[in-house]
Parts: sequence; C-alpha cells; structure tokens
Amino acid sequence: MRGLLVGRFQPFHLGHLAVVRHIVHDRPTEPLVLGIGSAEDAYTPDNPFTASERFEMIARALGAEKITGWLAVPIPDIHRHSLWVAHVEELVPEFSRVYTNNPLTRTLFEKADYAVEATPLFDRERNEGASIRRLLREDAPGWRERVPPSVASYLDSLRATERLRSFGAPSAG
Amino acid sequence: MRGLLVGRFQPFHLGHLAVVRHIVHDRPTEPLVLGIGSAEDAYTPDNPFTASERFEMIARALGAEKITGWLAVPIPDIHRHSLWVAHVEELVPEFSRVYTNNPLTRTLFEKADYAVEATPLFDRERNEGASIRRLLREDAPGWRERVPPSVASYLDSLRATERLRSFGAPSAG
Amino acid sequence: MRGLLVGRFQPFHLGHLAVVRHIVHDRPTEPLVLGIGSAEDAYTPDNPFTASERFEMIARALGAEKITGWLAVPIPDIHRHSLWVAHVEELVPEFSRVYTNNPLTRTLFEKADYAVEATPLFDRERNEGASIRRLLREDAPGWRERVPPSVASYLDSLRATERLRSFGAPSAG
Amino acid sequence: MRGLLVGRFQPFHLGHLAVVRHIVHDRPTEPLVLGIGSAEDAYTPDNPFTASERFEMIARALGAEKITGWLAVPIPDIHRHSLWVAHVEELVPEFSRVYTNNPLTRTLFEKADYAVEATPLFDRERNEGASIRRLLREDAPGWRERVPPSVASYLDSLRATERLRSFGAPSAG
Amino acid sequence: MRGLLVGRFQPFHLGHLAVVRHIVHDRPTEPLVLGIGSAEDAYTPDNPFTASERFEMIARALGAEKITGWLAVPIPDIHRHSLWVAHVEELVPEFSRVYTNNPLTRTLFEKADYAVEATPLFDRERNEGASIRRLLREDAPGWRERVPPSVASYLDSLRATERLRSFGAPSAG
Amino acid sequence: MRGLLVGRFQPFHLGHLAVVRHIVHDRPTEPLVLGIGSAEDAYTPDNPFTASERFEMIARALGAEKITGWLAVPIPDIHRHSLWVAHVEELVPEFSRVYTNNPLTRTLFEKADYAVEATPLFDRERNEGASIRRLLREDAPGWRERVPPSVASYLDSLRATERLRSFGAPSAG
Repeated sequence: MRGLLVGRFQPFHLGHLAVVRHIVHDRPTEPLVLGIGSAEDAYTPDNPFTASERFEMIARALGAEKITGWLAVPIPDIHRHSLWVAHVEELVPEFSRVYTNNPLTRTLFEKADYAVEATPLFDRERNEGASIRRLLREDAPGWRERVPPSVASYLDSLRATERLRSFGAPSAG
Repeated sequence: MRGLLVGRFQPFHLGHLAVVRHIVHDRPTEPLVLGIGSAEDAYTPDNPFTASERFEMIARALGAEKITGWLAVPIPDIHRHSLWVAHVEELVPEFSRVYTNNPLTRTLFEKADYAVEATPLFDRERNEGASIRRLLREDAPGWRERVPPSVASYLDSLRATERLRSFGAPSAG
Repeated sequence: MRGLLVGRFQPFHLGHLAVVRHIVHDRPTEPLVLGIGSAEDAYTPDNPFTASERFEMIARALGAEKITGWLAVPIPDIHRHSLWVAHVEELVPEFSRVYTNNPLTRTLFEKADYAVEATPLFDRERNEGASIRRLLREDAPGWRERVPPSVASYLDSLRATERLRSFGAPSAG
Repeated sequence: MRGLLVGRFQPFHLGHLAVVRHIVHDRPTEPLVLGIGSAEDAYTPDNPFTASERFEMIARALGAEKITGWLAVPIPDIHRHSLWVAHVEELVPEFSRVYTNNPLTRTLFEKADYAVEATPLFDRERNEGASIRRLLREDAPGWRERVPPSVASYLDSLRATERLRSFGAPSAG
Repeated sequence: MRGLLVGRFQPFHLGHLAVVRHIVHDRPTEPLVLGIGSAEDAYTPDNPFTASERFEMIARALGAEKITGWLAVPIPDIHRHSLWVAHVEELVPEFSRVYTNNPLTRTLFEKADYAVEATPLFDRERNEGASIRRLLREDAPGWRERVPPSVASYLDSLRATERLRSFGAPSAG
Repeated sequence: MRGLLVGRFQPFHLGHLAVVRHIVHDRPTEPLVLGIGSAEDAYTPDNPFTASERFEMIARALGAEKITGWLAVPIPDIHRHSLWVAHVEELVPEFSRVYTNNPLTRTLFEKADYAVEATPLFDRERNEGASIRRLLREDAPGWRERVPPSVASYLDSLRATERLRSFGAPSAG
C-alpha cells in the first residue's frame, strides 16, 4: 500500500528531501505519494510557485538522488476542513499510511481511520519554508544552502527572487 | 519535453491504451503526462469513477504493458473555457506537445501556441467510453473485451456494474 | 438517535406526508430530520420554491397532522458526490439512520456505514413531484388533490402557477 | 435615471439593434445600460463569444448607428435566481427601469419593485440568437443578413464559423 | 411572525442563552429562529465546531431550560455582503424581526426594510466567544463557568480542548 | 488600441483622477478602460463600496472634468493569480497597454506580452486609499480634500461615514 506525505513544497527544500529519504529508506517497497497542497495557489508571498513548478522541483531533487517509485499529485484547497480527507481520497491514488507532524492533519486522518506517523524532521521545516521564502525575497545567500542544488538552479531559471519581490512582504512577515 | 494527453478515462479502455502505446512508440524518450479530466466528478452516469480510481486503472494497464515514463495528473473542471489552458498549465508539469482529436481542445491549445497532434484512434474511443459505460450498467459481457484485463478485474473489485446501475440512465442515454 | 429523510420537496406533497407518517408511526421516539436538498436552488422549473418556502410547506403540513419532534435543515448542493455524505454530516444534527429509495443515496450512505432503510412509497413520489409541477404550471385542477390542503393554500398565496409559468417548460418536459 | 437591457448578445444581431434603437428613440435623455449576461461563459455552443468580444460587437454596431450614451457591463452568472437582482444591482450602475420580455426576469425585477417594460421585438430575437448560431456553424449565407454589417466583419475576423464548428452541435440542437 | 437571531455559536455560551431567554420572555408567542452563521466553517481556530455540533449545543442548552418553539438553521457564508440578506431569506423560514447588535448586520437588514432590535447583552458576548475559545484551548478552568452545563459536558465528549489545540493559535490571537 | 488601468477605487480620489488626466493627456485618441477590481467585494473595511457605486464616483468625477472616451468594467476577483490575466482578457474590451505600478500586476501582464507602463503617481495613492477610508470612518475633515468634490457629495449621499463605522476597524488598521 502507498504512503502519503502532504506538503506545500514552497519551495521543495532539504528538510523535505530528508523526510522523503527517511520514508523511502524505512519502507523501500511502499510507493510514496507526495500531495502538493494548495495546488491552485501561486504568485502569492506564501505560495509563490505553481503546482507545475513544484512538481518540477520534486522531480529534479528526487531524480538527483536516484529515488524512484514516488508520484506527486496536486491537491487544490477545498476550504472545508470537515470534507478535506474525502477530497484527498477522491483525487489521490489509494493510500493507507499518512506521514505528518501537523496536528490538524493528524486529527482529520485519524478520525477517518488512517494510520498516521510522525516525521520528526518535518515539523521544523514548516518554519524553514517561510524563512527560505524570506531569504529568497532578499536574495540573501542562505537560501541556496537550504535547497537541493538542482532546485537552486531551477529557482534561478524562474527568476524566483524577482518574482518574490514583486509580491511585497507577506502579511504576517 | 513532455507530451500531454487529456482524457476522462471513464474507464481507461483499449482505445486509450492503443493511443498511449502509439505515442510511446513514436517518441520513446519523451515523457507522457495523462491529464485526468473532470477529476472532481464521480458517481455520475458519465463520470462514474473517481480520479483516484482512474489513476489505479491507468497504473494497472500500463504496468501490465511494461510502459514506464508516464505520469498522471488530476485536472478538475474549471467551467470557463477561456481560462482552461492557463488552468492546465498551472497544475500539470511543463509540456510542449498536446495530443488530441477534440476540436475545441485543439482550438484552445493552438491559440496558446502549443503544438497539437491528432491521434487518429482517439476520437473514435470517445463513443467507446459511453458505450462501455452502457454495457457495464447492463452487465453485458461486451465490456470485458473493451478494457485491458487488469482494468476488468479492478472494475470487478469496485463492483462497477452495481455502482453504474445505482445512478439510473444518463440524461442523454 | 435521529433518522434522516432527504428530499427536495418541490413541493411537499401527499407522498412525502405518507412517508413521514409511516416513519413517525414506526419509531415514535426517534426524532426525524427532513433534509431539504438542493436548498440554494429556486425559481427554476425543477426547483421552483426556495428552501424557506419549502420549510413553510413542511411546517404547515406536519402541523395540520399534529406531528411534532421533526426538524428541517436546508442542504445546499455540493456537486461532488464523493463528498456529499461528509457535507451532510457537517450541516445536519447527528443521525444514525437514513430513509431513502434512491439507489445512489443508498450507495453513498452505506459506504459511510449508515443504516439505510427503504421507504416503499417514497420512490413513486419522485415522479409525482415532476407531475405535480407540470399540473401546477398548467393550473390543471389535479395538483390540489396531490398536496395537503395547507400546502395548496400556501401555494395559492405564492401564486405558484404564475411563477411556474414564468420559467417556460423544463428542458426534459 | 438609467434603463437596463439584459441579454447574452451571442452574437449582437439586428433584433438587438432594433430594440436599442426603439428605447433610445423613446427616451433619448435616459442612458441605457446593456448588461452582458453569462459574461464568464465562452467557447460553448450556446455562448461562443467572450464578454470582451460581445462588447466589441455592441460598440461597432452602435457606433455605426451614431448611438451614444450607452454603456455595457459584463454580468457573470450567479446560478441562484433568488439572489440575481441583488447581484445585478451590485455590479451595474444604478438603474430604475428594466426592459425585458423574459417572464422570469420580469418576475424577479418586479418582486424587487422595478418598473419593467416589454420590448415587443425582443422576445422573438431569442430564437434568432440560436438560429444565427446554427447558421454560423454551417457557414450558411443567412447569418450575414441577420447581424449589422460591422458585426459581420468582426465575426469574420474572429473566424467565428470555424470556432462554432469546433464545439460540435449544442446538446439541444 | 418569527424573529431571527444570527450568531456563530462557537460555542453556544451563557451570553447566547441570556439573549434567547430575554427574547422568549418578551415575545413568548413569536417563534425564534437561530441562524447558525459560517455554517460550513469548522476545524479552524475561530470556528472550531461544525454546524451539526453547534445545533447539538443549542438543543441541549435550550432543552435544559425547557425553552421550546425555537428552530435552528445553518447559514453558509456567501462572501458577498450585498447579497447576504437575500441569501438568508432564501434559506431561513420567513421572519420579520431581527435581533442584533452588530452594526453591519443592522445596516444590511435595515436597508432591506426589516425591523431590527438591539440585544444589549449580545454585543459583549462577541468577545466572550473568542475568550472562551482561548480558555478551551488552554484547558483553563474558566471556560466551564461560561457555558451551560449541558454544553460543557458535550464539549468534553467532543474532546474540544484537544481539538482546539490541534489548530495552533488563531492568526490574531 | 485601448489602455487599461486597474484599481479598486475605494473610493475614487484625487490620486486616481491625476493618473487618468495624465494618461488622457498623453494619449488623447486612445480610449481608456478603468477596470474596477474586486468588483464583487463591498461592505467591508477595505472594500466599502459596491462596483455600482464606484462606477458612479468615476462617472461624476470624470464628467466634472469633461473627460470622455473612457469606460469602466467591473472585474470580480478570481483568487488564482496565474489565471488572472486570462480572466481580465475575457471580461474587458480588448486592450494593448496596461498602466500600473503594482509589481505583481506588471509581472503577470508582462508574462502575457503586454506593454506595461508605470504611472508615477499611482503607487502613492495605494496608501491614500487606506488613509482616506480611515478618515472617512472617523469623519475627519481631511477626507473631503482628497476626493473630487463630486465624489465628496456622492459619498455624503451614501452616508459613507456611517457605513464605514458599521464595519469596525479593518484587521490591519
């Protein structure tokens, strides 16, 4: 059976890569689905990249690591938490295990009788996503050390720094 | 660069399989994206299966053929044709070629400067989709000959005949 | 625990009343929820009356029968069958039993582990709804015999015949 | 105060022009608002042209007639008839008179206390819209005689015949 | 005629109960409709409970007080203030009086010619809702004193404290 | 060809007027389209006025200046930035030039190959919009000096101060 890891991957960074490596190492025969959350959101301070671009980052990063047997599925927001698990089940290939450290995600999937496992590294990266976006916006050198090299050069090709600057600061930043 | 083939795959049948084989044979190094159209539609006479179930059919049929290098992406409807290509571009990994015999799909993608190629077999299958759903609803033996064996057994496991019967006849059928 | 009866009640007619009487007689201590389906639809040939007006019909008809212990809840459409049960559960007070003869409703609720019971009379009324709307549109005398007297006078107060005529014929009629 | 004429103008034809001429002649000092209905619909058999293109047709046709003092406002569908008048009021500059022969439009605006006037010619054109679209699809010569010359040449520049053919026949046609 | 009291009831607390008692005492023969606002919102810091659960709280609290003759109707958000009164009118059984201290609610209903009455206690409770949610999240003993006993035990059965903690802090808190 | 200036015009003030004057002076033969953004938003602290009312302000202000040859089109939000340009193109009469100082608007239109020009004054007014709304809410005399006199008297007729006060303070204010 498959495992499911939901994230926004804005951008896909070393924290995400570490989690994927960890899962794939633990369960090498279990295909992993990466659910690309808030898929229809893009060109905003918190969601700068399209689902299409986020797929590209994942494909390059996992390809460079020779990780196979994964698939990525865009998951648009539904804005109704009580229906979210049914929404995911409808769009994503069948899965039986969910990897998350987000307490709400855990609550909702457990209510629907899924096995939920923590990914110790994953929670920390949440903040990493925001700080990498801040570094990108300022074109501070630190962002390059926090994403896989293949993602760094892809972000260059997108002129990510320029794009992030065009949004202004995020409301909470 | 990738090619894109959009269909609803309700269900994935031998016509679809022939088209995929044809494309993969012609361009063995070009990854193929199968866009699962009307992704959020399910449990209706014309769209009986969820995107999740349709992914399963594709994976089983292409796996049995040892076809690799494809990926499948759910594409929800947007109900605004003028915005549809931008919607697809946002969700689907970058592609440069579109395979279709649908004249509207051709019109919209050509307007957005994509190379569009006809798939001579593909148009005919359109009707095949409807007739296979009718045969399924009636549990007429013919439906088994029109889908790959792996899809047939998957449809059995879904109790597809029973499901289709529960919708009543489609409005136009 | 409560029972749930979902209908569109366009309008509430003698068939509906018979079903409610039957359920209330069978299980006098179990509160009955009437889910008013397609709640946000109104002023169309198939859904001529608002949820507010349909509530009024139910209240008058059940009041005249001295039936108490029911409640009525508007349920807007969600247009995604796979999510419909979760949608109903979110809006409607908790229930454990579903009354329906509609095969799709049965399929969806059974998949979510509800007890589903047939209401032998209920299926037939489906067509009755359409035929009463047709009679109303034509102001044919027959419609009065098919709805409770309190509903008939309420429909008069709404000038229902005039309203239905203003829509033209339904697409399938 | 302004008058309001709502139509879909798919395309803007001689029937529409006659109505506008009639209104402008009757009330030369009262600005006329043309509400472009189903504004977000395009590239379908019944709504082939975008609101932007329909604006262009109106501007060319009324410009050729030296009719001034009008304005055109796109009105997206809201799919809830009970809310439609409030929706129109929010988007359209204030108006006090409504021109329509559509019974439902009349019902809804009268309920909201607007003065509603019939436009004797307008009802007939409804069918004209459908028949002009059919003629356009078949590239039958008749369509040119039913639209203003400036609209005919604009439709040529859009390659309207080709576009309509790409949709296939409308479901009801 | 009925009165209407709109609230979110997240959760239903003693301030709400006082208002209902006050209204029922003043107008014992006038049925009271409780409109459950933001009905489709749940599992968020500001809207932790589903409409279904909020109905349950109301039913238990008013049942314990032997208050009858009320009904509760879920009202989903519409996100367009100009259309909100029409939206409420479509879903809620007819009413002629509105109880509110919210100035916007007052403005919108007065514009639509409703009699609006202030409920002196009601405004204060607005902040009470937020502070009770904060107390719940921290499992501080104070929350129990601010809701009816029947609501407190219902919230225990929902493991409300745990649920609220799973969302993190609200953005503004 | 036309030029396009997108703004929310909440309210239309002297900064907007200066920009329009500047454009019309520079290109007197090029019609100017004012796109009324967030058209469906109204009765909120940041979007207090309906598109209909904002049209009225524009018409009065430009009429007082004897500026003709403009038109105004409501543009509802679409909440998907990647699709926004296609959305605007569908609703607005064809244009070839875009006036903006907003970096995201520039990015999106440049990506779609439009000529984009800065309007040096326009950026500053962004804050002016917020500060005029704040002054209006407080009924501080300063607001009258920042809008054209015809807009000031129109705002009086709307009892704008009272309306703004009814919303409470904006979340960020």
